[in-house]
Amino acid sequence: MTKVKDIGEQGLLERLQRFCPPEIIGDDAAVLETAPEQSLVVTTDVLIDGIHFSNLTTSPEDAGWRAAAANLSDLAAMGASPLGITVGLGLPGEVKVSWVERLYQGMTECLQKYNTSIVGGDVVRSPVTTLAITAFGQVHPNQIIRRSAAVVGDAIVVTGVHGASHAGLELLLHPQLGQNLKDAERTALTRAHQRPQPRLDVLPILQKILNSQSKIQVALSAHQRCDLKSQIPVAGMDSSDGLADAIIQICRASGVGAVLERRQISTPAAFEDWLTEEQALAYALYGGEDFELVLCLPQESALALVQHLGQGAAIVGYITPGSTVLLHDEQKKFPDQVLSLSQGFQHFNQ
Amino acid sequence: MTKVKDIGEQGLLERLQRFCPPEIIGDDAAVLETAPEQSLVVTTDVLIDGIHFSNLTTSPEDAGWRAAAANLSDLAAMGASPLGITVGLGLPGEVKVSWVERLYQGMTECLQKYNTSIVGGDVVRSPVTTLAITAFGQVHPNQIIRRSAAVVGDAIVVTGVHGASHAGLELLLHPQLGQNLKDAERTALTRAHQRPQPRLDVLPILQKILNSQSKIQVALSAHQRCDLKSQIPVAGMDSSDGLADAIIQICRASGVGAVLERRQISTPAAFEDWLTEEQALAYALYGGEDFELVLCLPQESALALVQHLGQGAAIVGYITPGSTVLLHDEQKKFPDQVLSLSQGFQHFNQ
Repeated sequence: MTKVKDIGEQGLLERLQRFCPPEIIGDDAAVLETAPEQSLVVTTDVLIDGIHFSNLTTSPEDAGWRAAAANLSDLAAMGASPLGITVGLGLPGEVKVSWVERLYQGMTECLQKYNTSIVGGDVVRSPVTTLAITAFGQVHPNQIIRRSAAVVGDAIVVTGVHGASHAGLELLLHPQLGQNLKDAERTALTRAHQRPQPRLDVLPILQKILNSQSKIQVALSAHQRCDLKSQIPVAGMDSSDGLADAIIQICRASGVGAVLERRQISTPAAFEDWLTEEQALAYALYGGEDFELVLCLPQESALALVQHLGQGAAIVGYITPGSTVLLHDEQKKFPDQVLSLSQGFQHFNQ
Repeated sequence: MTKVKDIGEQGLLERLQRFCPPEIIGDDAAVLETAPEQSLVVTTDVLIDGIHFSNLTTSPEDAGWRAAAANLSDLAAMGASPLGITVGLGLPGEVKVSWVERLYQGMTECLQKYNTSIVGGDVVRSPVTTLAITAFGQVHPNQIIRRSAAVVGDAIVVTGVHGASHAGLELLLHPQLGQNLKDAERTALTRAHQRPQPRLDVLPILQKILNSQSKIQVALSAHQRCDLKSQIPVAGMDSSDGLADAIIQICRASGVGAVLERRQISTPAAFEDWLTEEQALAYALYGGEDFELVLCLPQESALALVQHLGQGAAIVGYITPGSTVLLHDEQKKFPDQVLSLSQGFQHFNQ
């Protein structure tokens, strides 16, 4: 089995170039075309072997997919379409070349699904396998989704179910769990962990809805089109660190509070055969890595968005004055509960 | 002395935010404005403690400066102006917070000199200190400098002296060397290693010269301005891996050869008091990390550029048919020599 030390960093770079578009290879930097009137969006992640990924639970293909997906999700969370990613790799000489190729295979599978690619990189020796990804995207300045733009009265939309990725990880770590689960359910949950889907697909739907809402307002005040176009700002982020974290972060950044309705937080149907109601809620709120979008927008747009998306998309609550994020139970079975980030740490000892 | 493990990655991120423009903090990704009709240029480097930098020869400020400078130099080598960089950091818990702050201090000093900044990043735990930098720039599509654009007859311009950075490193590693050097000379050489200057300053001068040459041609053929604007392409790259490497890479990418004139390869004046003629040449050709630009362009433009730049800028040779890079001695003191990348490895056992 060929190892990195057998072919050297330069030899490895040459092998990895087949994962990149040929036109970007062989210069000091990659050149990308951007569309006119777009802002550039940039995000970066560093992943360390044994801390952020591990051969114990994750194949190299899945590690690559997950790394690419996390960065594309950050772009989606800003409202941006991807332009490409760069990949910086630190590798011990003992790593197998095939492991690295499988990692790149997984990354490119994810990127291809979203019509983007690896546009540059660096490979160096390191005592520990290290993966540094930077993703670039573009967005029209009026369509940027910011954490700080939530206003009182906004509906809080989740674009899908929560808790599946954490459940999948638990099943991978402890195969004896979930004996009641059907094979297809088990596969779907582990798949949610191994191959999370960044919600770039939500962006055109969201823009279509906001544009049609804009037009109604423009008709009311025709001479202010430009201003109005930016008058329906959407607040949001992705739920990579958990649904509770996302809502708390948005509220902090926007200087508002929120009330969430317990029954509206959708979890995978398979949870009913396996987890208690409390466990299912904890997975959904604090599990993380579901890579859904959490968006705050006016009620009418929110309803239209949920209807378009289906598949677990829901209005889970509303933005309120103050700074408290409250979990409410319409059925009064559970008392109101104030959500905080420390509860996530308590639940999963992160 | 506070260590990273005392305040955690989140605490450290908060401390490091003072090195970033406030408007980019607190979202999933940074948003940057690009100018219209510009292409995006992206480059990335990974640096590992003990391999690419070391506390033995390099203060954290200098390590930061050098890392930023290397990435800005890659942008300059493409003809691009910087938009910003992202910084991904992997850190053992034992690293002092002040070390990290000093690293960022060095990076931002370099970036500020070139009117740019850190626009995003990630901090994670790692067994080894790791620095992953991605730099973004923009360039008009007609002004991209590519390695592959050299044509037979082009003059080869270096934008400054070569060998200073390697000499500085030798003096830092072996303080007993260069006893004949004056203090100011020693300082200038070590400074060349510790604080290399990416040659972004060359770009506007180069464009001005090319524009004025363009205009002469436009006058000859007034109806083809657009085509003509892209008819004086400049080939080039930076000399970060050594002057010989740069010329060989350009020749490979362009499918041409070159003849270099030994006497035209300028080295620091201080070398005369210290190194033999052969040693000085080896430092210049294979030392690396001088971060000058090596540019191939028509004779007339090349002469104008060298005159404008001064300070060691020179025409060091010409592009020829074939694929050989030949080192020639006008004075016939040394026989002609074919340059190859392996000679660099032999010289410095890289």
